[in-house]
Amino acid sequence: MAFTLSQVAEHNSQKSCWVIINNKVYDVTEFLPEHPGGSKIILKYAGRDATAAYEPIHPPDALDKNLPKDKHLGDLDTAAAEQVARVNENRRKTKDVLRMEQAEREKPSLNRVMSILEMEDIARKVISYKAHMYYSSAADDETTLVENMRGFQRLFFHARVMRPVSTVDPTTTMLGFKSTIPVFVSGAALAKLGHPLGEANITRGAGKTGILQMVSSNASLSAEQIAQARLSPDQVLFFQLYKNKDDAVAEERVKEVERLGYKAIFLTVDAITPGNRERDIRAPFVLEAEEAEAEAKGGVEKPRTVGQVQKQEEESQVNNEGTAGALIRFVDQDMSWEKTIPWLRRVTKLPIVIKGIQCVQDAVLAAEAGVDGILISNHGGRQLEYSLPSIDVLYRLRKERPDVFDKCEVYVDGGARRGTDVIKALCLGAKAVGMGRPFLYAQSAYGEDGVAKAVQILQREIVTAMKLVGARSVKELVPEMVEQVSWQPYYPQAKL
Amino acid sequence: MAFTLSQVAEHNSQKSCWVIINNKVYDVTEFLPEHPGGSKIILKYAGRDATAAYEPIHPPDALDKNLPKDKHLGDLDTAAAEQVARVNENRRKTKDVLRMEQAEREKPSLNRVMSILEMEDIARKVISYKAHMYYSSAADDETTLVENMRGFQRLFFHARVMRPVSTVDPTTTMLGFKSTIPVFVSGAALAKLGHPLGEANITRGAGKTGILQMVSSNASLSAEQIAQARLSPDQVLFFQLYKNKDDAVAEERVKEVERLGYKAIFLTVDAITPGNRERDIRAPFVLEAEEAEAEAKGGVEKPRTVGQVQKQEEESQVNNEGTAGALIRFVDQDMSWEKTIPWLRRVTKLPIVIKGIQCVQDAVLAAEAGVDGILISNHGGRQLEYSLPSIDVLYRLRKERPDVFDKCEVYVDGGARRGTDVIKALCLGAKAVGMGRPFLYAQSAYGEDGVAKAVQILQREIVTAMKLVGARSVKELVPEMVEQVSWQPYYPQAKL
Amino acid sequence: MAFTLSQVAEHNSQKSCWVIINNKVYDVTEFLPEHPGGSKIILKYAGRDATAAYEPIHPPDALDKNLPKDKHLGDLDTAAAEQVARVNENRRKTKDVLRMEQAEREKPSLNRVMSILEMEDIARKVISYKAHMYYSSAADDETTLVENMRGFQRLFFHARVMRPVSTVDPTTTMLGFKSTIPVFVSGAALAKLGHPLGEANITRGAGKTGILQMVSSNASLSAEQIAQARLSPDQVLFFQLYKNKDDAVAEERVKEVERLGYKAIFLTVDAITPGNRERDIRAPFVLEAEEAEAEAKGGVEKPRTVGQVQKQEEESQVNNEGTAGALIRFVDQDMSWEKTIPWLRRVTKLPIVIKGIQCVQDAVLAAEAGVDGILISNHGGRQLEYSLPSIDVLYRLRKERPDVFDKCEVYVDGGARRGTDVIKALCLGAKAVGMGRPFLYAQSAYGEDGVAKAVQILQREIVTAMKLVGARSVKELVPEMVEQVSWQPYYPQAKL
Amino acid sequence: MAFTLSQVAEHNSQKSCWVIINNKVYDVTEFLPEHPGGSKIILKYAGRDATAAYEPIHPPDALDKNLPKDKHLGDLDTAAAEQVARVNENRRKTKDVLRMEQAEREKPSLNRVMSILEMEDIARKVISYKAHMYYSSAADDETTLVENMRGFQRLFFHARVMRPVSTVDPTTTMLGFKSTIPVFVSGAALAKLGHPLGEANITRGAGKTGILQMVSSNASLSAEQIAQARLSPDQVLFFQLYKNKDDAVAEERVKEVERLGYKAIFLTVDAITPGNRERDIRAPFVLEAEEAEAEAKGGVEKPRTVGQVQKQEEESQVNNEGTAGALIRFVDQDMSWEKTIPWLRRVTKLPIVIKGIQCVQDAVLAAEAGVDGILISNHGGRQLEYSLPSIDVLYRLRKERPDVFDKCEVYVDGGARRGTDVIKALCLGAKAVGMGRPFLYAQSAYGEDGVAKAVQILQREIVTAMKLVGARSVKELVPEMVEQVSWQPYYPQAKL
Repeated sequence: MAFTLSQVAEHNSQKSCWVIINNKVYDVTEFLPEHPGGSKIILKYAGRDATAAYEPIHPPDALDKNLPKDKHLGDLDTAAAEQVARVNENRRKTKDVLRMEQAEREKPSLNRVMSILEMEDIARKVISYKAHMYYSSAADDETTLVENMRGFQRLFFHARVMRPVSTVDPTTTMLGFKSTIPVFVSGAALAKLGHPLGEANITRGAGKTGILQMVSSNASLSAEQIAQARLSPDQVLFFQLYKNKDDAVAEERVKEVERLGYKAIFLTVDAITPGNRERDIRAPFVLEAEEAEAEAKGGVEKPRTVGQVQKQEEESQVNNEGTAGALIRFVDQDMSWEKTIPWLRRVTKLPIVIKGIQCVQDAVLAAEAGVDGILISNHGGRQLEYSLPSIDVLYRLRKERPDVFDKCEVYVDGGARRGTDVIKALCLGAKAVGMGRPFLYAQSAYGEDGVAKAVQILQREIVTAMKLVGARSVKELVPEMVEQVSWQPYYPQAKL
Repeated sequence: MAFTLSQVAEHNSQKSCWVIINNKVYDVTEFLPEHPGGSKIILKYAGRDATAAYEPIHPPDALDKNLPKDKHLGDLDTAAAEQVARVNENRRKTKDVLRMEQAEREKPSLNRVMSILEMEDIARKVISYKAHMYYSSAADDETTLVENMRGFQRLFFHARVMRPVSTVDPTTTMLGFKSTIPVFVSGAALAKLGHPLGEANITRGAGKTGILQMVSSNASLSAEQIAQARLSPDQVLFFQLYKNKDDAVAEERVKEVERLGYKAIFLTVDAITPGNRERDIRAPFVLEAEEAEAEAKGGVEKPRTVGQVQKQEEESQVNNEGTAGALIRFVDQDMSWEKTIPWLRRVTKLPIVIKGIQCVQDAVLAAEAGVDGILISNHGGRQLEYSLPSIDVLYRLRKERPDVFDKCEVYVDGGARRGTDVIKALCLGAKAVGMGRPFLYAQSAYGEDGVAKAVQILQREIVTAMKLVGARSVKELVPEMVEQVSWQPYYPQAKL
Repeated sequence: MAFTLSQVAEHNSQKSCWVIINNKVYDVTEFLPEHPGGSKIILKYAGRDATAAYEPIHPPDALDKNLPKDKHLGDLDTAAAEQVARVNENRRKTKDVLRMEQAEREKPSLNRVMSILEMEDIARKVISYKAHMYYSSAADDETTLVENMRGFQRLFFHARVMRPVSTVDPTTTMLGFKSTIPVFVSGAALAKLGHPLGEANITRGAGKTGILQMVSSNASLSAEQIAQARLSPDQVLFFQLYKNKDDAVAEERVKEVERLGYKAIFLTVDAITPGNRERDIRAPFVLEAEEAEAEAKGGVEKPRTVGQVQKQEEESQVNNEGTAGALIRFVDQDMSWEKTIPWLRRVTKLPIVIKGIQCVQDAVLAAEAGVDGILISNHGGRQLEYSLPSIDVLYRLRKERPDVFDKCEVYVDGGARRGTDVIKALCLGAKAVGMGRPFLYAQSAYGEDGVAKAVQILQREIVTAMKLVGARSVKELVPEMVEQVSWQPYYPQAKL
Repeated sequence: MAFTLSQVAEHNSQKSCWVIINNKVYDVTEFLPEHPGGSKIILKYAGRDATAAYEPIHPPDALDKNLPKDKHLGDLDTAAAEQVARVNENRRKTKDVLRMEQAEREKPSLNRVMSILEMEDIARKVISYKAHMYYSSAADDETTLVENMRGFQRLFFHARVMRPVSTVDPTTTMLGFKSTIPVFVSGAALAKLGHPLGEANITRGAGKTGILQMVSSNASLSAEQIAQARLSPDQVLFFQLYKNKDDAVAEERVKEVERLGYKAIFLTVDAITPGNRERDIRAPFVLEAEEAEAEAKGGVEKPRTVGQVQKQEEESQVNNEGTAGALIRFVDQDMSWEKTIPWLRRVTKLPIVIKGIQCVQDAVLAAEAGVDGILISNHGGRQLEYSLPSIDVLYRLRKERPDVFDKCEVYVDGGARRGTDVIKALCLGAKAVGMGRPFLYAQSAYGEDGVAKAVQILQREIVTAMKLVGARSVKELVPEMVEQVSWQPYYPQAKL
C-alpha cells in the first residue's frame, strides 16, 4: 500500500500519530508513551517526515525491535516521496548548516593533520552544533573532563639514554588479542551524529590499522551492522554492555553479541544514571535562539513577536537527560559484586571487564571478584563531576595495590591525547589506553580514513616516545620512568 | 490630619526634619542623632518623599519600633499623595533602572535555568546595582569569598560502583527537624533589595520544597512577617541572632522569636564588627558618576560643572560600614564561652547553634560548651578576609577532632553551589550545608518560584551525585569517599 | 655678581661648564668627572638652566656639600631670571606632563580613597612616568616584588570567636618607642620625584598619626630638613644608613644624624650594589620615543629624520644603574659581622638594626652579634631577584629559630598592603611592619594628608582584623592564628 | 664549461635533474634517492636556480662531501648568471620578507638591549618565519620547553649579607679550560637560518668575551670553517657529536675534529630520533597560505582557484621530521654504556662528556662509566616532551647522589636566561650552564656583536647576583643558598 502526503497529514495528533521515516509510513500512536525520549519530540513530527531528526540518533534496527510489524503501514507513493525530497532540498538552510558547509570547504587535507588535538579542532568545525555539544560536553562545570587531561600533564619522564632502541615494538595485547599499538577505541555513542556512516568508520579504520574496538551498547548502528563492517571475521570487537535492569533482556543482549562474534563484555558501571551535561542539554535552545535571530534579520518569514517566543519557550520541555539520557533509562541501578558478576559468568563464557572503576578499593574488589580486566574510567568526565582523574586513580593503584596488576589486566581511558600520555599509563601498569572522543571526532571529520590517520599519528608519537625514554617494548616501560610532580605545568599551545 | 506638600517642605533642616514614607508624614528631628545609618542620609530627604530609599533596607516595623507614636504626624492629603505618585512616575529613569528593565525583558523562562550559577548570573542582571554590590561583595579583595568555592574544588571523589542505588534517600535532619535535602537557607539580609516581597519569597519557596530556613536578624521583613509567610505552622524556621550588647534587649528578642514559633537560635559570632566590603561601600559613588555622565550627555538638565561635582564629592560622607553596617552597630562585641552560652541557655529552651566557627579549636570549645550544633562559616567571606575557607575548616575538623561530630551537629556554609559540593561536605561529617547568596539571587530573579527551582536543581544534582558515588542515604556518605588533592583544578565553565 | 644668559651660555662644553640652578650660576667643570651620575647628564645642560632636572633627585644640600664655595659663582641678573622663567613657562608641554595634568583634574577626593592599593593606583596616574618607573620597578623580571605580596596571600587565619574585643589596642613599640599602629615608614628614596615637598610630607603625615619613620640616606631632602619637618622634637625618626666605604665619612654621617635627634641606625645591607631595575633604566628611552612620536605628529618643530634618531640613540648612554644607582656607588661592599657591628657600636650609642636580613642563618648571626633589631627585607624586590619573599623568611624564622625573637626585635617589610597583612606578620612574631612604596605613593598623590589617610586606612583595617581574629592587643596575636596553606589563592580584585 | 639557462632547464625531471647553486651547475639525478631531506624538495628546483633554498640549511662542504666530482658540471655563462641575479632581485617580495625588512629598520641599537629575553624578542622579529619556527619550536605541545624555564623560577635564594664582596670572580673552568663566566654556548644547529655568517658569529663573539663554545655536528658551517673563525688558535671549542651508526664514519668524524683542534667530545644521546616539532613542521604550510592570501588580494598574478590550492595541498609532502630531521637520520640508535664509551675512548684521547642526561640513574651510570663530564639536557625541550626539566634533574641529583659531582663535572642546559638562573645551577653543583637559543637569537639580530653583548649582559647579571647572595667566587655558591619552593611564582614581565 502506498500513501499520499495528505493521507499521512491527517494523523497529526496524540489521538492518531503517523510519521514518515525514509519514505515509509509508521503508526506510532500507541508507542508514544513508551518512547524513551518522551512523546513530545515525536508529536513535533506527527503527520510529517521525521527522517532528519530520527536518523542520527537511532540504530537502524530500532523500529524493527520496538514497533510491532502491523504498525509498519507501508510506503509513500512516488509523488509523495518526490515531494518530500523536494521539500527537504528547498528548506532554508539554518545558520548551523551554512557554517558546516563553509567549514567543510575550508577543511585541510588529511595528510596535513598533525595531532589528535588538531584532528579534534577540525572536527568541531565541520560537525553540527548538536553533535559538537553531545561529543564535547561533560558533567556540571566539566572539571573532571579537564582534570583527566591535566592529570597526565603532572607526570614527567625519567628518560633513559644509551639503550639500543633502533627497533621498537609498540604492540600489546588485551585479553590475549593483539593490538598494533597500546591504544583501543573506547565505547562512544552516536557516531552518526558526526558522520552518516557512523561507527562503521571506526570499525573499518581500526581494522585497517590493527587496533581493537570496544563497541557501545548505544551506538547509532546496531551491534550486527558494526560486526558486518569489520574488514575480516578475525577483526576483534569488544562489547560495552549497559546491563538492562531486566536480567532476561540483558542476557539476550549478551547472547546476541556473543553470536555476532564479539570477544569480550565490558560491563559499564559508571553510567547508571544520566550525567548532567549542561552544554548538551542547552544545545536545542541555543540553536533555536540562533535561528530566531537569523529569521528576525534575514526575514523572508515574518519574525515572531516577543510574546510568541516567550510562549514557545515556556512550553518547550527541558530534557535534563540530554541527547543520550533516554538510552540509559533502562540500565540496572542495582548491580553488585555479589550478584551481577556471577550472573554474567553464568550467561557467557566471554571474558569480563569492569568499565568504570574510579578508586583503588573498587579495583581491589573487582580483582577479588575474579574479572578478567578493569577499565579505570569516569566516562570521559560525563558522569560524576569531581571523580578523581583516571590517570590519578591508576597512579594510586600502582602505588598502593601493585598486586591488582597481577590478578587482572588494567586499562585506563579519559584524557589521553598524545603518544606520551599512552606511554605514561603503560609505565604505571596499564596494558592499553582507551580513547573515545578522538575517534568520534576523527570519523566525523574524515570518515574511516580519519580513524586510520589518528592511529598512525599515535603510532608515530608512541614509537618516538619509546625510543626517547629508552624502551624497546611495552614490557620495558616501568614505574621508575615516570614521576608525578607537585606542580601543574603551564600548557601553552593546545586549547580544549 | 492631612498635610500638603508645602507644609512638609517647610521642615527641611536639622532643626525640624519631616519626611514622607508611603504617604505618611513623620517628624524625625529628634531621631536624627540616633539613626544607625547616620543623620546625613535622612537629611537628604528632609521635607520630601523618602519612600524609595527607605523601603528596601528597613523592616516594616522599624518605624513603629523606633519612632514614638506622637512623631507619626499623619497622612498626606489626597492632592499631595497624587502629586508624589506623579512625580515618582515622571522621574527620569536612571541608567541603572533602564538596564534593569531591559534585563527583565530578556530574562529566560524559569524552566530553562539549569544551575545555581546560572540562576545567580541571571539575577545579577535584573537587580539594581546597589543590590548587586550588596549581595556579591565581600571583605577587602574578596579572597575568602573566592577561596570558599575553590576549597570545594580541591576535593575529589573516590566513587564507589556496583552498589544498589536505584532508590536513594537524600533527606537529612537538623536538630531533629527533617529536610528533603541536606541544604538549608543560611541567613542573608535585605532580600527586599532584590525583590519587593523579600524574605517571604524564600520562606514560601523553602516551605514548598521542604527545606529549612535560618532567618537573619537583619532581614528586610520582620521576624513576625516571615513567620506569617510560612505555608503552615509546621514549617520550621531557625533564627539567626545578632546578640545586642544590652542583655535585656537581646533576651526580649530571643523571647519574641520563641513566641513566633522559631525552632532554634543560631548565635552569630563572626560579624561583631562590620566587614570592609569595598564594592558595596563604593556603589553609591559609582552610580552617582554614572548618572553625572548620563546627564552630561543626554542632558535635558544642565550638566553640573566640575566645581560642583568636586564640591559635592568632598561633602558626601563615605559610609565605611556599607549598606548593612548600621544593622550590626549594637552587636555585643564581648561575648564569651563562659558568659554568653549560659546566659542564652537561661533565657531560652530552644536549641543553640554557634554560627561562625572558623577553626578547629573553637569547634572544640563550642562542643565543650554544650551547644547543640555549630555552623562553620566565615559569613560568606564578608567579614574577616583570609579566614580559612569553610570547607577546609571542616576538613581539618574531621581529620583532627572527629570526636566533635559526636558531641554536636556540624553544619557548614560558604562557597557551595553544586550538589557535589553538598555531598563533599556530608562525606566530611556535616549534617547539612547552608546557602545564602543562591537563595537571595533566586528570589530576586524569580520570586518564590525561583527559590523552589533552586531547591529542585540541587535535589536533582544531589541525587545524581549520591547514585554515582554509591550511597543510598546520607549516612552512607563517608570520609573515605573524598580526597583533598594537592593541585588546584582549572575551572573552565563557570565564572564568578 | 649677576650674570646674563649669554654669559652663561659661553660655558657650554667639557672645557668650561656652567649651569644654572634656581637662578644661581655654578661652575661644575672640575666636578664633571666626580659626578656620581656621570658627566654626560650634566653636559646636556652645559651653559643652560638645569633646575628641572636637578631638583627632584638631589637633596638641597648636595651643592653645598659637593661643590667648593668658589664655584658658586653668583646669581642670574633679573632680566635673565625672568627670561628663564618665561622659557620654562612657554616650553611645549610633553605628553607626559599633559597626561599628569589631566590625571590631577580627575583625581578623586581623598575621603573617597578606600585602600592602600587604590591610593597607589591613583598616584601612579598623577606622577611623572619617570617617578612611576622609579617607584614601581624592581629587579629583573620583578618576581620577588610580586612574590612578596603573594607570600602574604598564602597565609590564612584561624580566627577565634567569642572573645571580648569591644576595645582593641593596636599600638606597638619599636626599640621602646611607641607607635599608634604596628606599621612604620620604611626608608624609600626620592620622594620629591612624586611631590615637590618630598619626604617632609611623610614626616608630617607620620607625626600627625603617631607612627614611626625610618628615613633613607638617599632621601631627596637632607636629614636635617626632614628632622625639621617633624611636628615636635618628640617625634621619633630612625635613620637608614648606607654605610660609606670610607669609615671616617660613615662615622661623620652617623654622628650628624645623632646630633639631629634620630633615634636609631638601620644599617642597610641588602643594597651594596645597584639592582637591575629594567623599567627604571628604560624610562628615559620610552619618554624620548613618546616625544619623538608626538613631535612627528603634532609637529610645529620639524620631525627628526630616522637617521638623526638613530644617531642620537647610538650616542645616548644607557645608565644601567638606573635613577638611584649613583647614590649607592660609595656604599661599603666589604661589611662583615666581625668588623662592622663593633665599629658601629663604637661610633654611636644609638640602637642598631640590621636592615636587609634575607634568610634564617643571617637572622641568627645578627642576633648573636648583639644588634637591637633586624628588619627582614629584600629592598622591596629591587635588589636580588628571587630573594625569598620577606614574609616567608619570617615564617621560617618563627618555625626554625623562635629563640631569635627573644634576643632582638624583628621587623619585616616588603609586600604588605592590608591590615590583614600586618596582622599576619605580627602573629608570626614581628613587632612592626614596614611599608615603603605605599607612603611614597600617598604623598605623591595627596601630600601629607595622603600619608595621614594611608595610616588611617591601615588603622581601621588593623582594628577590624584584630576584632575578627579575636585579639585585644598585639600581644594576643600568636602563631597559632595563622596557617600557611599549600595552594596559591586566586587574587580577583586588586591588580598590581 | 659554461651553461645557458635553457640548457639547464632541459634537465627538469626525475630522469635528469640539474640544479644551479651559486652560479654552478650540478647533476643531482643519481643523488635524488639519497638526499636526506627527500627527493621532492630537490625536484621543486629541477632545471632552476636553488641557491636561496639550499644555502641556509647546508654546510658549505655538503656538495663536496656528498656529490661526486664528475657531477659538478661547471659554471653558468655570464649572461645566465646575470639573468639569475636579475630574476632574484625582481622577484616579488613575500610578506615574510617585507615584514623582516620593516623589523630590521625598527630594530633598536644594540646598546639599548637590556636582557637575554629582550634580545630574543628582537631577533624573533627580524628573522624569517622559517627560522623563527625552527629556533623556537619544541616537541609536541612544548611543555618541557616552558617547564625548563619554570623550573628555575621555583628556586629562590637564601641570600647572605655582611660578607666582603667588593671584588667578585665569576670565572669557572670546564674540563680545565677557563671561562670568564660560568656560561657556555650549547650546540645549536643552523645558525645561518638567522644570519648569513652563521656559527662564525657565535665563535667570534665567544672568543671576544672569553667563553667556551660547544659546536653542533649539524652546524650550517663546517667544523673546519668554525675552527677558522676563532680569534686565535688558543680559543677553545668543544664538539657536539651526533654519532653515526657506522662506527667507521663516526671515528673519522672524531678524528677530523681532533685534528681541527677541538678540545672535547660532547656525545649527544638525547636526539637519536627526530622530535615532533609541530610549529617547525607546519611552517611551510603557514607561509604558503600567507602568500596565497597575499596573491589573492594584491594580485598582479592571478589568484589560484580553490581547486588548485586543494590539489597542491594534497600533493605536498608533509615532512614530519621538520627542518633538521634529515640531519639526524644517520644517528646511531643503538648506543650503550658498555659498547659506546669504550669505543669512543679507543678512537680519541679527548675528554668525553655525555650530553643529554635526563635522570639521576643515568647520571650515576655515566659517572660509573668514567666519562669526564655530563651535560644534563633535554635538548631544549625539542625531543622528549615531558622530560623532567633540566634544573629539576640537577636538583634531584644534588639531593640524592652528591657523590656524582666528585666523580665528573656536571653541566646543565635548558631554560636559563638570567644571571640568577646561572647562579642557581652553580649553587646546586653545576660547573657551568649552557645556553643555545640565546646565542642563536643574538647572532641573528646583531651578528657577532650581539653574541658579545649577550655575554656582557650575563656577566653583569652574574656579578650582581654573586654580590647580593654573598659569594666572592663560584666556589662559594653552595646548595644552602637555594630553596625549591612549593609554589609556582607568577611571572609578570617577560613573555616567551
